[in-house]
Order: sequence, then C-alpha cells, then structure tokens
Amino acid sequence: MFNLHAQLVKDCFQVMDLSLCRLLLLNDANYPWMILVPMRNNISEIYQLNAVDRSQLMVESDVLSRFMVKQFNPDKLNIAALGNLVPQLHIHHIARYQDDPVWPAPVWGKKTAKAYTEDEANRLIKLTKAAFNG
Amino acid sequence: MFNLHAQLVKDCFQVMDLSLCRLLLLNDANYPWMILVPMRNNISEIYQLNAVDRSQLMVESDVLSRFMVKQFNPDKLNIAALGNLVPQLHIHHIARYQDDPVWPAPVWGKKTAKAYTEDEANRLIKLTKAAFNG
Repeated sequence: MFNLHAQLVKDCFQVMDLSLCRLLLLNDANYPWMILVPMRNNISEIYQLNAVDRSQLMVESDVLSRFMVKQFNPDKLNIAALGNLVPQLHIHHIARYQDDPVWPAPVWGKKTAKAYTEDEANRLIKLTKAAFNG
Repeated sequence: MFNLHAQLVKDCFQVMDLSLCRLLLLNDANYPWMILVPMRNNISEIYQLNAVDRSQLMVESDVLSRFMVKQFNPDKLNIAALGNLVPQLHIHHIARYQDDPVWPAPVWGKKTAKAYTEDEANRLIKLTKAAFNG
C-alpha cells in the first residue's frame, strides 16, 4: 500500500496513477509544475529504485515532458529530484518561461504558491488525463 | 565532434568520457558536485535524446549516484537538469549534507564557488576515474 507524503498531499492535486508513478499537479499557478512520485514506500533516491523501475521512471518522465512541451510551450523544462525537505522520492517537472516570475533562477523557495482557481485546476487535470489516457 | 559549452569548460574539470556523457567535476569545494553532459550537440532537454541515449543516461546517472554515495556519504543527493543559463543539456549530481552552507535550500545561485586546491582536485579526479574504470 503506497502512502503519499503528507506535504505532497497538502500542496498538490493528485491527477492519476501511471504504471510506476503517481502524477501530481502542484497547486501553484506561477508555473506549470507537475511531479512524478514512484509508488514505492521508503525510497528517497532514484538509485534506490530497482532497474525496472528506473527504466520506467525515465519513460514516464519522457511522456510527461513531451506532454508539458506540447501543452505549455515552455522556453525550458526544469527536471529535478531534490528532496531536502520532503524525503519521499519525487521528481519535479516545471515548465519555465523567460518572462516567468523568477527566470532564470530555479523556482524553489522563491515565490509563494499562487493557488489555481477551481476551474483552472479542473481544466488542467482533465487535459492531462486525456493526454495520458489517449 | 562534440563541443562542451564554454561556461562548463570554464567552471569545471573534465574528468572523463563515459559511453554517452562527459563527466565533469564542478570547481566548487562547497559541495561534491558532478555533472553529466551527454556528448550530443544541439540538445537541451532529456526528451530530445533518442531512446537508447535516454536509457544510457539513466545508467550513467545511476553509476555516478552510487559512486557519490559511497565516496561522499551525503545526507541527500540532488539531481537536476535545469539549463536556464547554459542551454546545453547537463545533469547536476550534488552531494548534500544537513550541515552544508545552504541546506536545505537548492544550491544554485546561493554561494560563490570555492575553488579546490590543485591537490584536492587531482585527488577527487583520480578517485573518480578509478571508480569508473574499476
């Protein structure tokens, strides 16, 4: 039984479960920001996943990246596994723009999260599900 | 013919070439900080690599991660592909400690790089080469 870390539960919408990862949308309208969380307990580093899961993580990150590029047309993707504050392994995928609020700095610790409206969150979640189920 | 970005040439020691990536050591003694650069020109995102290269990148990142954990015994690895300033795809691997200069913040843009002594750089490069060749 996989348990998502309480901080991720609090900060994110849980969009859907892929084969390996739960796909989250961070509730921060400053940037399109999605997170992959491998549904494995007690893992904090990519190298701690087994080889099959590591391959699958690359596949799911690739599909998510292509979706985000197509959907959001960013100037750059930022992909990162940090986990200094939330130890459960989670991989950030952030669409960055040269005119976003903190470009070119990394986003962490810079801006207070700006919550989505309910309509906008629902629209993004629906779009994402359609892309992954399509 | 692969050309390493001038900023990476300036900031890093070029340790060795793996099958896909050039392995760099950032000249910043604040944290053990190594960088993988796929030796492919005109690529700025992981998804732009072909499928074979993406698999190989995961393998090389995995081997590097295990080396860094064994060698440096960090509290956390930070792995990231950002590239907002240097567009050539490069993947940071940073060994973080709860008592390092900026924990728990991400390292980018925080501390001025502290150059290694020549002896310390040579020692780290030699250790790394031995681990990857061994």
